[in-house]
Amino acid sequence: MQLDKNLIFNLVSSFLEEDIGRGDITTQSVVSPKFYACGRFLAKQNLVVAGLEVAEAVFASIDPDLELVAFVHDGEEVAAGKELARIEGAASVLLSGERVALNLLQRMSGVATQTRKYAKGIEGTNARVVDTRKTIPGLRMLDKYAVRVGGGYNHRFGLDDGILIKDNHIAIAGGVRAAIALARENSTHMLKIEVEVANRDQLIEALESKADVILLDNMSVEAVNESVKFIKENGQNRNIIVEASGNISLDNIAEYARTGVDLISVGALTHSAPAVDISFKIAPESRV
Amino acid sequence: MQLDKNLIFNLVSSFLEEDIGRGDITTQSVVSPKFYACGRFLAKQNLVVAGLEVAEAVFASIDPDLELVAFVHDGEEVAAGKELARIEGAASVLLSGERVALNLLQRMSGVATQTRKYAKGIEGTNARVVDTRKTIPGLRMLDKYAVRVGGGYNHRFGLDDGILIKDNHIAIAGGVRAAIALARENSTHMLKIEVEVANRDQLIEALESKADVILLDNMSVEAVNESVKFIKENGQNRNIIVEASGNISLDNIAEYARTGVDLISVGALTHSAPAVDISFKIAPESRV
Amino acid sequence: MQLDKNLIFNLVSSFLEEDIGRGDITTQSVVSPKFYACGRFLAKQNLVVAGLEVAEAVFASIDPDLELVAFVHDGEEVAAGKELARIEGAASVLLSGERVALNLLQRMSGVATQTRKYAKGIEGTNARVVDTRKTIPGLRMLDKYAVRVGGGYNHRFGLDDGILIKDNHIAIAGGVRAAIALARENSTHMLKIEVEVANRDQLIEALESKADVILLDNMSVEAVNESVKFIKENGQNRNIIVEASGNISLDNIAEYARTGVDLISVGALTHSAPAVDISFKIAPESRV
Amino acid sequence: MQLDKNLIFNLVSSFLEEDIGRGDITTQSVVSPKFYACGRFLAKQNLVVAGLEVAEAVFASIDPDLELVAFVHDGEEVAAGKELARIEGAASVLLSGERVALNLLQRMSGVATQTRKYAKGIEGTNARVVDTRKTIPGLRMLDKYAVRVGGGYNHRFGLDDGILIKDNHIAIAGGVRAAIALARENSTHMLKIEVEVANRDQLIEALESKADVILLDNMSVEAVNESVKFIKENGQNRNIIVEASGNISLDNIAEYARTGVDLISVGALTHSAPAVDISFKIAPESRV
Amino acid sequence: MQLDKNLIFNLVSSFLEEDIGRGDITTQSVVSPKFYACGRFLAKQNLVVAGLEVAEAVFASIDPDLELVAFVHDGEEVAAGKELARIEGAASVLLSGERVALNLLQRMSGVATQTRKYAKGIEGTNARVVDTRKTIPGLRMLDKYAVRVGGGYNHRFGLDDGILIKDNHIAIAGGVRAAIALARENSTHMLKIEVEVANRDQLIEALESKADVILLDNMSVEAVNESVKFIKENGQNRNIIVEASGNISLDNIAEYARTGVDLISVGALTHSAPAVDISFKIAPESRV
Amino acid sequence: MQLDKNLIFNLVSSFLEEDIGRGDITTQSVVSPKFYACGRFLAKQNLVVAGLEVAEAVFASIDPDLELVAFVHDGEEVAAGKELARIEGAASVLLSGERVALNLLQRMSGVATQTRKYAKGIEGTNARVVDTRKTIPGLRMLDKYAVRVGGGYNHRFGLDDGILIKDNHIAIAGGVRAAIALARENSTHMLKIEVEVANRDQLIEALESKADVILLDNMSVEAVNESVKFIKENGQNRNIIVEASGNISLDNIAEYARTGVDLISVGALTHSAPAVDISFKIAPESRV
Repeated sequence: MQLDKNLIFNLVSSFLEEDIGRGDITTQSVVSPKFYACGRFLAKQNLVVAGLEVAEAVFASIDPDLELVAFVHDGEEVAAGKELARIEGAASVLLSGERVALNLLQRMSGVATQTRKYAKGIEGTNARVVDTRKTIPGLRMLDKYAVRVGGGYNHRFGLDDGILIKDNHIAIAGGVRAAIALARENSTHMLKIEVEVANRDQLIEALESKADVILLDNMSVEAVNESVKFIKENGQNRNIIVEASGNISLDNIAEYARTGVDLISVGALTHSAPAVDISFKIAPESRV
Repeated sequence: MQLDKNLIFNLVSSFLEEDIGRGDITTQSVVSPKFYACGRFLAKQNLVVAGLEVAEAVFASIDPDLELVAFVHDGEEVAAGKELARIEGAASVLLSGERVALNLLQRMSGVATQTRKYAKGIEGTNARVVDTRKTIPGLRMLDKYAVRVGGGYNHRFGLDDGILIKDNHIAIAGGVRAAIALARENSTHMLKIEVEVANRDQLIEALESKADVILLDNMSVEAVNESVKFIKENGQNRNIIVEASGNISLDNIAEYARTGVDLISVGALTHSAPAVDISFKIAPESRV
Repeated sequence: MQLDKNLIFNLVSSFLEEDIGRGDITTQSVVSPKFYACGRFLAKQNLVVAGLEVAEAVFASIDPDLELVAFVHDGEEVAAGKELARIEGAASVLLSGERVALNLLQRMSGVATQTRKYAKGIEGTNARVVDTRKTIPGLRMLDKYAVRVGGGYNHRFGLDDGILIKDNHIAIAGGVRAAIALARENSTHMLKIEVEVANRDQLIEALESKADVILLDNMSVEAVNESVKFIKENGQNRNIIVEASGNISLDNIAEYARTGVDLISVGALTHSAPAVDISFKIAPESRV
Repeated sequence: MQLDKNLIFNLVSSFLEEDIGRGDITTQSVVSPKFYACGRFLAKQNLVVAGLEVAEAVFASIDPDLELVAFVHDGEEVAAGKELARIEGAASVLLSGERVALNLLQRMSGVATQTRKYAKGIEGTNARVVDTRKTIPGLRMLDKYAVRVGGGYNHRFGLDDGILIKDNHIAIAGGVRAAIALARENSTHMLKIEVEVANRDQLIEALESKADVILLDNMSVEAVNESVKFIKENGQNRNIIVEASGNISLDNIAEYARTGVDLISVGALTHSAPAVDISFKIAPESRV
Repeated sequence: MQLDKNLIFNLVSSFLEEDIGRGDITTQSVVSPKFYACGRFLAKQNLVVAGLEVAEAVFASIDPDLELVAFVHDGEEVAAGKELARIEGAASVLLSGERVALNLLQRMSGVATQTRKYAKGIEGTNARVVDTRKTIPGLRMLDKYAVRVGGGYNHRFGLDDGILIKDNHIAIAGGVRAAIALARENSTHMLKIEVEVANRDQLIEALESKADVILLDNMSVEAVNESVKFIKENGQNRNIIVEASGNISLDNIAEYARTGVDLISVGALTHSAPAVDISFKIAPESRV
Repeated sequence: MQLDKNLIFNLVSSFLEEDIGRGDITTQSVVSPKFYACGRFLAKQNLVVAGLEVAEAVFASIDPDLELVAFVHDGEEVAAGKELARIEGAASVLLSGERVALNLLQRMSGVATQTRKYAKGIEGTNARVVDTRKTIPGLRMLDKYAVRVGGGYNHRFGLDDGILIKDNHIAIAGGVRAAIALARENSTHMLKIEVEVANRDQLIEALESKADVILLDNMSVEAVNESVKFIKENGQNRNIIVEASGNISLDNIAEYARTGVDLISVGALTHSAPAVDISFKIAPESRV
């Protein structure tokens, strides 16, 4: 996954507008635009880096000439104390952009760091950790990018690029069979059909209706285990993908992974990832 | 603090566009637009509510006729299990708006809940907990609103509505005295001047230059204590406001508060507030 | 498929701005805003209707009180002379909106009428006519909606909601197998993988790599026929979808359909659909 | 007529957003961004070229370094097989921009090709073929530009840069005389006044009111002939421009032209111009 | 001329955003949203009213329920002390909108008042006062509307709805004749051609090229007088419009008008119209 | 104060769109894009320059290669006849941008020139001339910048970066004391509190409530004099800032300044500053 450059600049521009408004009055009043400085991003804890390109875009949006010199790459695991990147330019630009750049880098690296923990928790199994739509509103693409470089995989990006039939859809449509039929008739042939099943009967309906992906939500490890077996035995050699979700934490993710599910989706990758601690040290330069 | 209605609707509209894109294909395919339902927001943990009006705006942006019936108000502390609000309308609208509404309500209530803990931690002192600019990019106003209903107070909203002279500004300007003089000359008379001081000499300069607010950053409780006394003794009866920040947690905030500082700013109110757990239960209705 | 109301109004608003600019100077100069009239859309040829809701939005964007009374519904086949819909309101509003409303209704009905011909051409077979991305820039959703009510089905809506590996992708990736593997690794599990094959070897690779959809581009009826058979025999009971495209016209579409392909995609549904002839007769009303 | 560069880039940017959405997932997954290629636009039929600058803008919007090398110029008539232009750059950029570039080039060249036929149909007369406002919504400027390079001329660009009093305006104003008087009083002196006349009486009123342009709509060749004579005889040496419109096709346009009208407006130049066939051949390059 | 409602609301919305930014902190802090008040616009000097609808839109943009009760109409001449309009609603809304509403009403009425003086200065002649493009950037339509209700007429609204060939165009094109020929060939037939002439030779060329409007710029009254006569004698009964401009003030406008020119354009109507004095008196109401 | 470059370009772009619309048809028709010229801005009266960077942005928005060579700097006082700046480029660009550039430069220099007069009027006193929010809607930042280079100072930029409690706020809050208390509780600690007082009692309340700034509105010189003395005697050595406003003109500003007030705010700096006279002379160049 690559972040679209136009997307990054549009986002960053709106974030700068939010923070700077009519102008950084302190810096404009106190700092001559001719004063140069060097800013260094330093990891203050162990973390997985994500968002260097976004941090650079913050400063480049204020002064297009600024470029970040990165010493690590997105997805890299670094230890506390590591210098992540350096940027030189007018001190006023570094000061005005500092907060937005840090807010983004700390958030994105926070998501990547959180994701890495979950990904490591299932190493050695065939399962993948995937994200959800429980992202921060407005940051969907940045959050999903951070999950990817953190070692996770992406679920659908929005309601328009994946069909996921949930309990309420099923109830309103009048059953799994009816819901899948409607979805198949009314969507393009390019999309798989994923359906959430709550019990054995629904699972059977889903298999008979040739669902492509089965979501097992809020089930115990045992229940997931049995369902996976049932699907293998009754899936007629079709490549059915099985996803588990709900109440899965770092404590139990390995157990779920060993059931043979393909995907384990975890909302906590994005809805509750704490920001990691990164500082931005500005050192005035002699150059004026 | 009240949230501006236009702001809410502009934000919500962009968040819906991010999530729904070309259309909620599952719901459009499976759910008849004539099917009605009732959705209920339920607290799944103890929490402080924030963002009910924002959650309502999500659904109202899809169908202007929908209205939330709230059983609690923003700022209220509720126990797990409590029904927070209810909304009736087309099932398709509830399903398409559910995720964005929850993402916002869980985030905002998460910030309010976090803030309430800090606010309680200093009850009985004269200090106030204040937020920082370490908010989620794009959510500045929502985050700051949630802090307020959580029991905290707001620091400046952006770089344009407050003067805060930090270490780098001081270094570049050539000292506290010079920096304050420049800020006073180049800004409107409506703004106070806050300055960060790192030691006694800088504090003396700040007092002599008649700074309005003194920021004591990353100091021990003892150091803050001494500084507060020094300011009282040397402040010439001016109403100097003192703010402490840096490494202040729930564990030590009470100690800092007892030093007599007026404000304690805490980045964790917003940069690392975990989302609280709220569910949205949709029940189909007989009405068609 | 339903058209999103916000999308319709955003599009219509930009089209009105394009046409009206600083104001309809003729109407503003000549027609009193107090003069009422009734406008009637009349079919001047046999056609399939599409876009009534869009036409209504044109007038409602100028005066929110205006409503179209429709006598037919989208997708209906009507004969020349039929009154499609009627709208009453200020004559100035009808005159200023007339051209944009007609341009849209004639275009959309043109696409629906064209599509209906192709759909009828394969009646009795199991094949479906599907559209392409050869739509008018800016009108993608309107064009695809018109295809749907015309009796066709939709292919992917954009480059982001479907994976279609074409000849150039294959060449660059180093073969069908490699391309499918990369696509599977780097996309969400919600998307099927469609691949274009040019010969038997590529077809075999596609089947072995478990492609979900096979595109047979620019093949003769005979070649398609053989490929369909081969896929059935070697598809291991997987539900492989087969699409034919390229040089398929009203003359030969039935032959292609009888080969057993599932989908026949036709660019001409949208890239060359002539506008149908619809008039808008305005009759001044006595009411002033 | 020159196309405004900002207009082109704004249009192209919105068209790319429509087609690419969250990203070209096939190309991003399968094609390394380091892979280079050369793309060639080839005419697959005889046509008049229009839109090369627009096609270039599509690729330049994705990667500002890309430039089209054109072998023909807009307005040139080329034979099937001719290479129109070539562009080199990252294969991923060529693949992601291909469809939008082709959709635009095929549409614009389609309009130019259609216009050229009409223009040739009246060669040797003093009449000009002019377009109408029956353009594709959103493409007004591109359509009108294509008409121009195709050999036609432009009628007004919108409702705000020309006064055209039609039958309904006349009916509501209470006659030709009243309508012209109102238009003259309420518009700037920079605009001519064109009025549609349906019969001899209206024509006389128009001449007496000193209309600048007379529109003869839906008249037979004979009726146009007589009207033109009448205008010449009664126009008092004023330079009255006469326009004919309605039911004019390639079959009869020459007859109309020979009546001595100045302008013949033809909606079919834009509302029903079929896209011409142009292909884009991408050849991978060794450069990596 | 009527102001387009969408234009008004878009303008007003951006002006409110400029003034209110993140919120009217004084009013939000001090005034309960439940407090009602009545605001009255009072003329503090003799003036011509313009912009009541715009002033209403300011308040309606904050609270859609608010409506202005106007006691005068745009274009009316009122004496100092006159109550122009009254509006009731939440005191907070009146306070937050007051400044923007006044700024607009005072500006627009200033332009109308200024224009009325010039219009009166030529009463009894056949000349009209017309505006120029010397309007306040961003307020073009409001300024031109105010000129119209003030008793003046509008020149072109922008560079795209009128052809005015000035001295530099002539110099570059190689003479009046060449410039007019180019303009006639390259523009639509709906536009008249106005040309600035500096001397008798250019005037002769303009007449021979059948220019529709002649601009006499920066000429003395005598020179204008002679030119008008020359045009009448040599204009071959064509309805040539003559415009004078440059250094025309209230002192000499009558003299210019008596030369028989049709139009006198005056930049001062808009570029230097002082704001008139209007106050907004807010009286708290008992209703809460 | 520096103008933000993004702000300038956004403003200029919308102003150009307003003026140019679909295209400068005269210039496009008459002037070859290959023709070069040099344009020179000349002062036609004595004035204080403001807005050179904005004028440059007008041309650079049409052609990014154009740069202004300035011979003076913003804030400089120049005599009639002085060449302010020069710009070379395509004649078509100079012609299309001329009017917007002049409108802005004349407006901004008009404000600066007006401000300089007031600033000179109080030279030798300790008072400062400050602006108000009576700026042209949409030009707030440009107007305030012009005030600054003209020698004045800025009051708050909007309703969100300063607290100013006026008569109506006081009336609704129930007195000066109550209003100040509410403002202090509900706003950030970074903002001073300014309050308007109408009499001695309110002044006493304001002092007791520790208002930071006192506004004396519409008072005679004598009344201001007495109030200033009273504040000095009763202000407890706090640095209370005193502002006078209302009916202050060039005739009496010196008297007000000598009362010892700190600030004198004058709406006329911006609401009624006449545009100064600057011309733009374009000379064709031999270079083609």
